[in-house]
Amino acid sequence: MTDQHTTPKTDIEIANAASMEKILPLAKERLGIEEDNLEPFGHYKTKISLDYIERLADRPDGKLILVTAMSPTPAGEGKTTTTVGLGDALNRIGKKAMICLREPSLGPCFGMKGGAAGGGYAQVVPMTDINLHFTGDFHAIGVANNLLAAMIDNHIYWGNELGLDERRITWRRVVDMNDRALRYIVNSMGGVSNGFPREDHFDITVASEVMAIFCLATDMKDLKKRLGNIIVGFTRDRKPIHARDLDAHGAMAAVLKDAFQPNLVQTLENNPALVHGGPFANIAHGCNSVLATRTALKLADYVVTEAGFGADLGAEKFLDIKCRKADLNPEAAVVVATVRALKMHGGVAKQDLGREDVAAVQMGSRNLTRHIDNLHKFDLPVVVAINRFSTDTTAEIEAVQEICASHGVKAVLCDHWGKGSAGAEVLARTVVSQLEKPARPISLLYEDETPLWEKVKTVATKIYAADDIIADQKVENQFRELQEQGFGHYPVCIAKTQYSFSTDPTLRGAPSHHVVPIREVRVAAGAEFVVVICGDIMTMPGLPRIPAATQIDVTENGQIIGLF
Amino acid sequence: MTDQHTTPKTDIEIANAASMEKILPLAKERLGIEEDNLEPFGHYKTKISLDYIERLADRPDGKLILVTAMSPTPAGEGKTTTTVGLGDALNRIGKKAMICLREPSLGPCFGMKGGAAGGGYAQVVPMTDINLHFTGDFHAIGVANNLLAAMIDNHIYWGNELGLDERRITWRRVVDMNDRALRYIVNSMGGVSNGFPREDHFDITVASEVMAIFCLATDMKDLKKRLGNIIVGFTRDRKPIHARDLDAHGAMAAVLKDAFQPNLVQTLENNPALVHGGPFANIAHGCNSVLATRTALKLADYVVTEAGFGADLGAEKFLDIKCRKADLNPEAAVVVATVRALKMHGGVAKQDLGREDVAAVQMGSRNLTRHIDNLHKFDLPVVVAINRFSTDTTAEIEAVQEICASHGVKAVLCDHWGKGSAGAEVLARTVVSQLEKPARPISLLYEDETPLWEKVKTVATKIYAADDIIADQKVENQFRELQEQGFGHYPVCIAKTQYSFSTDPTLRGAPSHHVVPIREVRVAAGAEFVVVICGDIMTMPGLPRIPAATQIDVTENGQIIGLF
Repeated sequence: MTDQHTTPKTDIEIANAASMEKILPLAKERLGIEEDNLEPFGHYKTKISLDYIERLADRPDGKLILVTAMSPTPAGEGKTTTTVGLGDALNRIGKKAMICLREPSLGPCFGMKGGAAGGGYAQVVPMTDINLHFTGDFHAIGVANNLLAAMIDNHIYWGNELGLDERRITWRRVVDMNDRALRYIVNSMGGVSNGFPREDHFDITVASEVMAIFCLATDMKDLKKRLGNIIVGFTRDRKPIHARDLDAHGAMAAVLKDAFQPNLVQTLENNPALVHGGPFANIAHGCNSVLATRTALKLADYVVTEAGFGADLGAEKFLDIKCRKADLNPEAAVVVATVRALKMHGGVAKQDLGREDVAAVQMGSRNLTRHIDNLHKFDLPVVVAINRFSTDTTAEIEAVQEICASHGVKAVLCDHWGKGSAGAEVLARTVVSQLEKPARPISLLYEDETPLWEKVKTVATKIYAADDIIADQKVENQFRELQEQGFGHYPVCIAKTQYSFSTDPTLRGAPSHHVVPIREVRVAAGAEFVVVICGDIMTMPGLPRIPAATQIDVTENGQIIGLF
Repeated sequence: MTDQHTTPKTDIEIANAASMEKILPLAKERLGIEEDNLEPFGHYKTKISLDYIERLADRPDGKLILVTAMSPTPAGEGKTTTTVGLGDALNRIGKKAMICLREPSLGPCFGMKGGAAGGGYAQVVPMTDINLHFTGDFHAIGVANNLLAAMIDNHIYWGNELGLDERRITWRRVVDMNDRALRYIVNSMGGVSNGFPREDHFDITVASEVMAIFCLATDMKDLKKRLGNIIVGFTRDRKPIHARDLDAHGAMAAVLKDAFQPNLVQTLENNPALVHGGPFANIAHGCNSVLATRTALKLADYVVTEAGFGADLGAEKFLDIKCRKADLNPEAAVVVATVRALKMHGGVAKQDLGREDVAAVQMGSRNLTRHIDNLHKFDLPVVVAINRFSTDTTAEIEAVQEICASHGVKAVLCDHWGKGSAGAEVLARTVVSQLEKPARPISLLYEDETPLWEKVKTVATKIYAADDIIADQKVENQFRELQEQGFGHYPVCIAKTQYSFSTDPTLRGAPSHHVVPIREVRVAAGAEFVVVICGDIMTMPGLPRIPAATQIDVTENGQIIGLF
């Protein structure tokens, strides 16, 4: 979000100039957590012990608020920034509030995406730490993933007692790097002592099923059980082989033990924030860990969290996967919108986005209102946050507000990016007044018992406004097989483009009557969902022509620069 | 070293039962370091800030003691254990002493090697942390290595302006895992969008040149310069391409910034220990970081450190590479010997090692005395530490002591494994009385100006007792080219088996008149040495039939078990 305003200060400059409080006293004063229940990482990051979290079980839960967004532009509309801004603003108006965010992936920092810890005056800090290794969680997830991979090929090397079919190994190696050269490799070359050559693939670490498991597991016991349930591949007669069949899950859990504790940091305004886990929002569910969200609900009266991509993907999975499994009941959704994105959905070309165009805003609002209507299907009250840019005009903003009002929803202008909590105070008050109404339980989109195919169709028709879903006979058979194998009660995790309600990223606005083609279906038996892939989904990004890494550096006094 | 005695307690049981002191107060009370100069990782590990280390520059240096060993058996003779035991014993007799160790590699924990943080009652703790992720240093080194790798293939993908020859890329990817399937791969398969398919290789992280650089760099500026100097490959006309040509070194340094701070932990007896860096002892120099050693010398009067493998490899490189480059002057070497290893070098088969055999001990002592004589060539006083096993007999031990005495060297019986510092008190007193003699500067084995070929020949003839070195014409040409390209002043880093003075691992004892065949020579332009590979050197281990990982687990109360 560094292009939001013309500002003399970059995100990293603002973050480096932050006046942080030491995390142990902050945890004590603000959350009542004693030092012995914390595992500090430096003076400004700490993990919270699992023992302590267990002891919170009897406390009442705070109110959960989801920050989601309209279908985004490639630059993103500022969900993380709004989550931070709203959290800070709730504290500003005297509420005890915490935020829960995903951890950024290291790899994309070297590409073009830059940091993912908020932006402007709505950031979590220490920014460079959070964007680089943080507390090592993703490294631990990578090790657990790659230990399993090594044990698979090692098993084959030593005789393949389980009868794994090398052509049917589904487990991939991972690295937290944008490295297109590893998307598709042949491994085990070079002769007898290196094993049996086979096709293999690397994904980026956040795409690992271990990451999804890490974020959905409720405790260490559940984590280990889920790791054991991972299906790594199949025999020639298509019998699944699990991580537990290789005795890998105990060591994988050991490797994840420390990482599994949620990370506590602070916002620029010194409010507590949990930043923990970060699964992909396409082939996984795209939310921070269940453990972090549950912990925050015990520690604060208001918890603001985010879900990846637009509401069609992020919010739907947050509700139908995370809330379903973790028994969470969010009481409001904040949908982030920008005038820029509305204009883009209204047909304006990128180079013309700076020019006032009320008609395009009105046209593009169909995208926003579709998301609002969708969230209402979950019985979730909605507030729209208009994330302000300096080029937005009063007429454009008023147009959005009018359209939202006609859908029974308030649209609040926010400038937390430029002003911190002061810029989101109205949003905070609007959300609080919403939360003062008696909460009703959310409605999930489908029942556990609904067959997998019907689940996908339900999401496609109700959320994407598609007429139907289609698939090759082969994929249809896979659906039937999964149903027969006993995976029919899993929720579905649909991977499609975030830029459109359809599977065509160029179809902006609110396309209807389209058909969703299903290319592939995979079971994530540890994460306990079925991944349904629609369209081209990239699980290993590449670096651009001039990688951001070429600008990153350390000064002689040890300050990191060039990380955006 | 878990098979040393029949003891009711395993290393991990002893470590888990340790009564650790919190590291911040320990650092304050024992070393006078204030909290603000430390970066804690939990309550029992901390990094020491580079700023603080810089401010120590004017303090006098303590005395440096190297722990090395005779040619080891596959189980190892207990160098780390002896380093810990001696350090604790020096503290026990009232000296202000610290130890400096290498960080263990995570990968081998899952194979058969198990932990590498000492053993018995001579360990550094927290043991499971140190053996698993510790403070994330190796993860950071892996990321820096793999960032460079990704930037290489990305450069080729986007047009290859520098003209890198895909066949002449020497930079390899790494993973901290024993994964033979990655030794030899073909990458960039799958079509236009994935790049140009080429041969590629993964090494284990400790084999990365980044690790060697990390351990030899004197400060951040030197680190960045060395990273920039890495040669990643060559053009078709054999012009070297460097990491700096890809603008990768700034980001690599940024990724390493936190890791570069030395790690402070404690021994089981609550004495301070620095554990930092851990390069391979074959294709690299096998010692902990220069920064840690220099820091320890400022903080303590006695610093005990270790070098990998036997003295022919570890001590030679410690002296000719690390001490040469970092201007260190060790004042004594402790050579660890075991009766078991002496018998093995005396021709006893593994299954007969438990039986008394004084003649075999005497015969095998030729290996030990060769190492002693070698160390005397560096003008380094020697004390032998006999690391006691329960099966050792008095006659066997006396035989070793007599033979050492005839070489003018004291051989002290030690039982720090079973008794902690009490078991190494005599060793400590012996070393201290040695250090009370006026120190003379060590003599390095060769001058910087000696040509590379002659350097290798000097090491081979003086240390390995070889008659000569040989190589194919192609390798000889490479020596000449490196000499012409201006790398002639670098020290040589010889990679050969640790089990024999020769390049044949089965030639025990003290073989002479052998010839050392050189298979390959590579320049490590960032680490600033020339790697000379003699015999089969494995830079990516594999897992055994039943990996140790299958035994590793976490209990429901969060304790890691099965890590040996």
